[in-house]
Amino acid sequence: MATFRITVAYDGTDFVGWQRQAVGTSIQGLIEDALGALDGRKVTVTGAGRTDAGVHALGQVASFTLARPVDAATVKRAVNARLPSEVRVLTAVEAAPTLHVRFAARTKTYRYRIWNGEVVSPFERRYVWQLAGTLDIDAMRRAARLFEGTHDFAAFQAAGGAVRSTERTILSSELRIADCGMRIDCGWPIPQSALLVFEIVGDGFLRHMVRAIVGSLVEVGRGRQPVEWVGEVLASRDRMQAGPTAPASGLFLMSIDYGSERGGALADEP
Amino acid sequence: MATFRITVAYDGTDFVGWQRQAVGTSIQGLIEDALGALDGRKVTVTGAGRTDAGVHALGQVASFTLARPVDAATVKRAVNARLPSEVRVLTAVEAAPTLHVRFAARTKTYRYRIWNGEVVSPFERRYVWQLAGTLDIDAMRRAARLFEGTHDFAAFQAAGGAVRSTERTILSSELRIADCGMRIDCGWPIPQSALLVFEIVGDGFLRHMVRAIVGSLVEVGRGRQPVEWVGEVLASRDRMQAGPTAPASGLFLMSIDYGSERGGALADEP
Repeated sequence: MATFRITVAYDGTDFVGWQRQAVGTSIQGLIEDALGALDGRKVTVTGAGRTDAGVHALGQVASFTLARPVDAATVKRAVNARLPSEVRVLTAVEAAPTLHVRFAARTKTYRYRIWNGEVVSPFERRYVWQLAGTLDIDAMRRAARLFEGTHDFAAFQAAGGAVRSTERTILSSELRIADCGMRIDCGWPIPQSALLVFEIVGDGFLRHMVRAIVGSLVEVGRGRQPVEWVGEVLASRDRMQAGPTAPASGLFLMSIDYGSERGGALADEP
Repeated sequence: MATFRITVAYDGTDFVGWQRQAVGTSIQGLIEDALGALDGRKVTVTGAGRTDAGVHALGQVASFTLARPVDAATVKRAVNARLPSEVRVLTAVEAAPTLHVRFAARTKTYRYRIWNGEVVSPFERRYVWQLAGTLDIDAMRRAARLFEGTHDFAAFQAAGGAVRSTERTILSSELRIADCGMRIDCGWPIPQSALLVFEIVGDGFLRHMVRAIVGSLVEVGRGRQPVEWVGEVLASRDRMQAGPTAPASGLFLMSIDYGSERGGALADEP
């Protein structure tokens, strides 16, 4: 028996999300099936973050235990050979059997990408929220900073959420204009368009929290609400007060940080 | 009657290429159908470069004449509304009726992207040629420069090519390592992988020429041929001497330059 920790990247467009569902293809299900074929028995994979349908990941972290004696390099190769190209295991390391990737996570980083322009690059269409028309980017930038610190985020969670506490600490919440719009190695921007990148780092996130924050930032960017309104929504603890949930296509789980403990890994990552 | 010049970007993965074919969906066909609906009659579109099946474009240029009185902004909006999201008109300008986008082109720029690593990013999979194993990048870089200047490129064209002259002038031919590997705004490289970008500017290109050049550079990178071999292949004028044709997925038509004449445009591009 050996426990492994993997980092996984996926284009979430065509999946029902990380978690196995009754209907549809999930990332977790694909990895469990690939590992089951390798291990010759049913394998359960635990993910550090549950991304919703259509959400992407560059650095999802997951763990599992295998019965057969295999090394980490073999696990990575064998699983990738069975996965569709939309899902890739980037790294695999042997980890302590006590590892719990979800509870051991110190911080998570999400990115949300907004294409502000009338015409979307064909190479961006699966990876942005397109918004035509003018956005007050400076106001959005200032509103973004108001989420930093420890707050009760009850107003920014999916309806029906039933977590014990809705308090979370946001270490940074920043909006910037990307200098690289078209994604084929930059330098070929589309006229009259900009790519906005919102990045948020926190000790945890409620369901739909990042997307509700982005939807609210866009309300400010549209001039429908002043910057300070964000603070009022936080104080209200009422989901009805916040902006709409931004679409999944623009959201990326970028990385999960485990601090100095290496996330239970027994060796450095390859 | 008014003539228009448009720049077009497309993800070529799922198309039979720029040019209309008996079977399959072409970029030209999609644009002609969209324009036909707008103009109420059959419209013929002339492209400046004929990209093959699976080849992408960020700056293809095309022209056409419409009978109905419409302005350039309307053309752009109406055509984009009818095109699938894989194809986008980026700019549209009214042009001189004498414009011939193919013959007026001074230079064309192509990019070819190689993902050198065992694992390909899910966000790159449609836009690269994946090569695992070691490549001698310095040797490839030196070999790339040997294509610069005026040469007979008969050894680097598709079999059965029947152009009058196989002489072309290459203004620059350079290979570099991209500092931005994963394409979701950089900074998240995959371990043990690199993205190589080959960019070539010339006054014209034979069919499959860029891909045959890239296939030959990889022969050098693999150590199967010395750098100087490239010059021998050029001198041979024999397609059998060059390396294999690199896959279409890595190739991008980046831009077409019309010099100071603005490519026949009657106004600056929006």
